[in-house]
Amino acid sequence: MRLLIVGGVAGGASAAARARRLSESAEIVMFEQGPDVSFANCGLPYFVGGAIADRDKLLVTTPERLRERFRLDVRPRSRVERIDRDRQTISIRELATGRMYEESYDALILATGAAPFRPAIPGIDLPGVFILRNLQDADRIREWITRGVRQAVLLGGGFIGLELAENLLDAGIETTVVERNGQILGPFDPEMTVPVVETLEARGGRLLLGTAAEAIHADSGGLAVQLTSGARLPAQLVVVGVGVRPENQLAVAAGFETGLRGGIVVNERLQTSDPSIYAVGDAIEVVDVVTGAKTQVPLAGPANRQGRIAAENALGGNVTYRGTQGTAIVGLFGCTAAMTGASEKTLRRSQRSYHSVFVHPAHHAGYYPGAEPMTLKVLFEPVSGQLLGAQAVGGAGVDKRIDVLAVALQAKMTVFDLEELELCYAPQFGSAKDPVNMAGFVAAGLLRGQHPQISVTDALRELAAGRLCLVDVRTQKEFDAGHIPGALHLPVDELRMRLGELPKGLRIAAYCQVGQRGYAATRILMQSGFSAVNVSGGFRTWQLVTAATARAGHSKPFVDS
Amino acid sequence: MRLLIVGGVAGGASAAARARRLSESAEIVMFEQGPDVSFANCGLPYFVGGAIADRDKLLVTTPERLRERFRLDVRPRSRVERIDRDRQTISIRELATGRMYEESYDALILATGAAPFRPAIPGIDLPGVFILRNLQDADRIREWITRGVRQAVLLGGGFIGLELAENLLDAGIETTVVERNGQILGPFDPEMTVPVVETLEARGGRLLLGTAAEAIHADSGGLAVQLTSGARLPAQLVVVGVGVRPENQLAVAAGFETGLRGGIVVNERLQTSDPSIYAVGDAIEVVDVVTGAKTQVPLAGPANRQGRIAAENALGGNVTYRGTQGTAIVGLFGCTAAMTGASEKTLRRSQRSYHSVFVHPAHHAGYYPGAEPMTLKVLFEPVSGQLLGAQAVGGAGVDKRIDVLAVALQAKMTVFDLEELELCYAPQFGSAKDPVNMAGFVAAGLLRGQHPQISVTDALRELAAGRLCLVDVRTQKEFDAGHIPGALHLPVDELRMRLGELPKGLRIAAYCQVGQRGYAATRILMQSGFSAVNVSGGFRTWQLVTAATARAGHSKPFVDS
Repeated sequence: MRLLIVGGVAGGASAAARARRLSESAEIVMFEQGPDVSFANCGLPYFVGGAIADRDKLLVTTPERLRERFRLDVRPRSRVERIDRDRQTISIRELATGRMYEESYDALILATGAAPFRPAIPGIDLPGVFILRNLQDADRIREWITRGVRQAVLLGGGFIGLELAENLLDAGIETTVVERNGQILGPFDPEMTVPVVETLEARGGRLLLGTAAEAIHADSGGLAVQLTSGARLPAQLVVVGVGVRPENQLAVAAGFETGLRGGIVVNERLQTSDPSIYAVGDAIEVVDVVTGAKTQVPLAGPANRQGRIAAENALGGNVTYRGTQGTAIVGLFGCTAAMTGASEKTLRRSQRSYHSVFVHPAHHAGYYPGAEPMTLKVLFEPVSGQLLGAQAVGGAGVDKRIDVLAVALQAKMTVFDLEELELCYAPQFGSAKDPVNMAGFVAAGLLRGQHPQISVTDALRELAAGRLCLVDVRTQKEFDAGHIPGALHLPVDELRMRLGELPKGLRIAAYCQVGQRGYAATRILMQSGFSAVNVSGGFRTWQLVTAATARAGHSKPFVDS
Repeated sequence: MRLLIVGGVAGGASAAARARRLSESAEIVMFEQGPDVSFANCGLPYFVGGAIADRDKLLVTTPERLRERFRLDVRPRSRVERIDRDRQTISIRELATGRMYEESYDALILATGAAPFRPAIPGIDLPGVFILRNLQDADRIREWITRGVRQAVLLGGGFIGLELAENLLDAGIETTVVERNGQILGPFDPEMTVPVVETLEARGGRLLLGTAAEAIHADSGGLAVQLTSGARLPAQLVVVGVGVRPENQLAVAAGFETGLRGGIVVNERLQTSDPSIYAVGDAIEVVDVVTGAKTQVPLAGPANRQGRIAAENALGGNVTYRGTQGTAIVGLFGCTAAMTGASEKTLRRSQRSYHSVFVHPAHHAGYYPGAEPMTLKVLFEPVSGQLLGAQAVGGAGVDKRIDVLAVALQAKMTVFDLEELELCYAPQFGSAKDPVNMAGFVAAGLLRGQHPQISVTDALRELAAGRLCLVDVRTQKEFDAGHIPGALHLPVDELRMRLGELPKGLRIAAYCQVGQRGYAATRILMQSGFSAVNVSGGFRTWQLVTAATARAGHSKPFVDS
């Protein structure tokens, strides 16, 4: 058995190690065009900024160690340029010498990854303009920074762009993030990104939404980034992080089908249309387990698992990949945003019916010092209550809640199950009613009809149309400090006594700060003969939604991707 | 509808609030014998030590607030002394005046809780000897400490005892924990408690296992605790925390059945044999979802959920409680131990067949600064691989992994599902192969026959019987720093070349530090014609198991409870 693997980072290296564990007798050769294999690409932003000081730490393993431990024939600086499917051979160029040679295979695994997209704008190749894909890129940016960078412009407000922004700001560099869409972190719903933006700005970062670079010029001070908005940003460093494209050339040239976004098409065994050829990682198209749609998910976790599966199948096994649910996380300056499953945007786009609820709990018992607030949004099916997706943003404990919900989603649990989850509780770790339980209570209450809710957006629309009376049930002090325009004020603890002040025949939408008192008010109103709903997530959600809308502005020069 | 609730802390207060949300018209009266309702009893150790400085923070709510918000008739300092089931009335004693009166009910919820057990030893009532159940106890202990406490003895190494130990040590008090069993934290397996003990001792705490107080004497320096071991411990403060007993007197007098450990027997609707009377919280017997056995689980999370369910049913609903899986957590000095489901001890006792695996991963990517080690143990069914339980001990991220596994357990997931979990990954939050995925790989490999494993205990027994050759596959340096007695040394990277040095016909058990290289070695050996197994969790697990055994000693004056 002769197994060849093209690509030696997450998916490729996982496949190679797994293959050797499964078979001592297989010949296993792994080709990597770069000098390093199995490096920690997720650590690159932290190496650029110096949070990770030791470059060697990013080399999870080396070709030498892989040879010793796994008897792998590892060939770095080797670019595979052609697949001859009839003869079952590949053509490799040794980059150091330019020499071409061939190797034959019984099975072939393509783990070619994805390459950062470089927009074709003038100046994209100027010195000082970088992408960040591998250790050499990171080395170059670090070296460039030592020459004196006061201002940096990051094109793209995605995960890596934001991680890089944190690191550059920490290094004392004035940093501007330019994002052509109306929000950062595209996979999230816009309101969930607001705390991230506020954190970035509080730490001195600048964010420009709804605009993009149209040219980069060499300037006296270094570079100047010309934006579609007309603004011109001086900078000595520009890093382009506007998404990645699957490295599919090899596969395309070999006649394999690719999906809409360029991912190599594989079956659930991760096999291409050629039974001896498999493909894994950022280079392939995967099935979104929630929507069933084909998608592109460039994440390390799925790539690693796919590598294991392809290796097992290539050696005669029969294992299937279950699809991807898009669990992702980003943290900067102690603010964390994480998600799993579908976003509200995606559900709306795919015309899937859904409900959403918001809760804004503390990450552990409020009476124990250090409780940090979070916002948790859960999306689920009407009637059945099956989970469709979840997003959280806040400080500590955000990762935990999304991991919990990622498992629940994978298990096809419902919001009724979330009510019953028995999670760890001691004051420094959680609450007797964990944030995930709370979201379950709120969502299940909605489905049972016990706790009718309305989204902020719907409430504002109905209010504007005169079909709704909005009632702020918080204290006088809270109301005075800020409330939703057009709201009456009637504190929940006075509600029973003052029902007569409410308009008859009009639907009442109660709201409080986070939703809990609004719920109590809704129950009182419902049982007093009113048609009543609670504004989901209360004033805090209204703040997030309105801030997201205000930031997105009216001019969206590009569509949401 | 007239609903009476006996007990106003976790289960009772949850029931009362839920009942009001469901019904504006019900008359709801809640009786509490103490002065406070709905206080945060899980915070008491932190209030004693001063980590929580503000006493009011522990009052989650007050009778006044409950009256205002929920129109509840809350009666603190009121002890319910009798239930007359025929007349559907209860007799209440007003503790301030001694006055007795009656109230009638349509439905009654018993949320009487559990009381700390006070062993009947001489001196248990001396000044300076305390239990810690409520805020008044905490007040008394705080006041006592201000009189000058240099040395404290904590009877019982359970959750509260250890939390209190942390707090007293932080306050500069010499603290000794006395635990009559051979391990602290009874619900855990002994080896998983070793890092907790080491942490306690590293911070100056002292632990005495396998002994108990037989008397407490008044002494010139304050108190002296006489132990069954013969030792005599001087102390100015003794806190008794040797478990709790359900407060079942009211129920027993009313003719209700109680279980082996005294919990009130209820059906899955949390109803007693009297259809109008429900019981919840620490006072009841619950079903362990893993073993199906009746058990006693005094935890706040389940009590809160049960309160909600009983309220709904008392008002005509039909909701069932799913049982308890015993998810629990304790943290001291940054060391966290958490568990969910059954322990190995429990499975062995209930003669349930199971497998266990150990992994010792870092809580996030090793290349990102600050990674903390953890030990994760997963128990699962042979063949099906369904989860039975999990325990983790370490620093950051332990709570997250047990929460993830708690959901997986509840969803009846298997170890094959753990392989596929798609969890949050960025370097500061996890790893591309999360600790839970790793445990899944190891466990699934065992079931698939790809990764045969042997427990440390079995390996030592087989080694002693001459039926096994134990091979340490780590580096020379690691081997020299300490290894399992009787092991050969053959580094994994030299294994393929030196297979001839191994005995033929004898089963080979490989081990490394944590299990990963041992796995690679096992695969090499198996494919080279040897009968080979990997010692689960490697040298690190051996260290934990042998430390636990050594600490437990040979004299166990009391049986494991």
